[in-house]
Amino acid sequence: MKRAIGVIDSGVGGLTVAHELMRQLPKERLIYLGDTLRCPYGPRSKKEIVQFTWEMVDFLLEKEIKMLVIACNTATAYTLEELQKQLNIPVIGVIQPGARAAIKVTKNNRIGIIGTEGTIRSRAYAQALTRINEHIMVTPLACPLFVPMVEQGILAGQQAYDIVEKSLIPLRSSEIDTLILGCTHYPLIKDIIQEVLGSEVSLISSSEETARETSIILEWNHLLNDSEEAPKHQFYTTGELDIFTKITEEIFHSKIENLQTVMIEKAVIC
Amino acid sequence: MKRAIGVIDSGVGGLTVAHELMRQLPKERLIYLGDTLRCPYGPRSKKEIVQFTWEMVDFLLEKEIKMLVIACNTATAYTLEELQKQLNIPVIGVIQPGARAAIKVTKNNRIGIIGTEGTIRSRAYAQALTRINEHIMVTPLACPLFVPMVEQGILAGQQAYDIVEKSLIPLRSSEIDTLILGCTHYPLIKDIIQEVLGSEVSLISSSEETARETSIILEWNHLLNDSEEAPKHQFYTTGELDIFTKITEEIFHSKIENLQTVMIEKAVIC
Repeated sequence: MKRAIGVIDSGVGGLTVAHELMRQLPKERLIYLGDTLRCPYGPRSKKEIVQFTWEMVDFLLEKEIKMLVIACNTATAYTLEELQKQLNIPVIGVIQPGARAAIKVTKNNRIGIIGTEGTIRSRAYAQALTRINEHIMVTPLACPLFVPMVEQGILAGQQAYDIVEKSLIPLRSSEIDTLILGCTHYPLIKDIIQEVLGSEVSLISSSEETARETSIILEWNHLLNDSEEAPKHQFYTTGELDIFTKITEEIFHSKIENLQTVMIEKAVIC
Repeated sequence: MKRAIGVIDSGVGGLTVAHELMRQLPKERLIYLGDTLRCPYGPRSKKEIVQFTWEMVDFLLEKEIKMLVIACNTATAYTLEELQKQLNIPVIGVIQPGARAAIKVTKNNRIGIIGTEGTIRSRAYAQALTRINEHIMVTPLACPLFVPMVEQGILAGQQAYDIVEKSLIPLRSSEIDTLILGCTHYPLIKDIIQEVLGSEVSLISSSEETARETSIILEWNHLLNDSEEAPKHQFYTTGELDIFTKITEEIFHSKIENLQTVMIEKAVIC
């Protein structure tokens, strides 16, 4: 099954999912589309998010993908159910994998979630968690500054630390032992978040967990690639290449050898 | 979907999977069958393992289970594919979840596997790992003394430590950074194994990972239980109740409140 896995995101955050997919499923080919031009999705209306997501999906369907990964929490919150119903390929989002991993890790059933305003407003994580275990106490927190900060390439240093520290103050009294990074941009500032919260809080990266669930769903649907050929990935962005390239290098650095061969084109979205 | 999840094992080891299922999926009802009378399966022939497993499956199918978890590595190695083909309910084993979790955790692609002779002989883990990532270096090691030791209730102390230490000597020069506990009995002696190997080796419990994948497969197949009613589990053993009860208490201790209400009957296997 040589067809590719399609990965969509509002921008560069989904590259953390793509990176984990390459690491955990090195035989699989990816086609990535980041809607950098219209990023962030977090503060947008449901209508806009649904429309933009469908435009990305249509672009990838033409490339005959075998599975779709919605590597954006906001888009997952508003479109997963609809896409699962309407597409005839498996579709997974990033919310359920993060929720399940958090349930596995927590000892005291107190789980925090940080995400964009859109993700937090949707209550999708709280629903995913309490649907499985009604005793989970959920502490949600919107962190609207994190995505713009990451998209500008600010991933370390005092400025980043100050923004993270101030944003997370509301979590101090929550007694959570597990925090879901409910946005695929956040793994890029994971070390700062861990430093601010201390080692007693376990961080759940929806990127790692989504890659793992992709592996399960591919196997379950007999879609794993058995070819020996090395996969040639394709990356598309709707916006400028500069930041995209910078962040791609930040995430993939020396561990990804085929970075040079990556094709980046402006996607035509109408 | 109030029907139960069926869980089978050669004895008490699968109770570690049952425990994790209860923890990660507290709304789901379990029917557990341990073939304690004919345990261990590890040294048995493929023919015997297949026959015994089918006898357990037939017993649970009469109870109209909605999904089957083969909570025994040896039985998974020899029957998973056949059961997935022949049953019209989802079937998962414990090998793929452990393999996927190990791939997620390893940094140096060197993964060790300990299991029964049967599991190691089957090469099922090596196949599951290299099918996904051909660069994984696998170090398999059969530990035939661990299951009899656990089934006798020897879970701590100098005797247990000595057996574990001696058994794991071949792993010393392997440079593994991740070890799959490829037998559902082994989580019961996880602390000793960790002490012997040191903190630099990450231990993967197939029990935790199998519970998580059960959650995924239930959701994927729209089989999650949405009822508010607390589930009433049933436990069956083909052998004596004494050891079974002792190990059940060891695993579930104060955290499981409904231990008193558990029904244990001798399964009629013909």
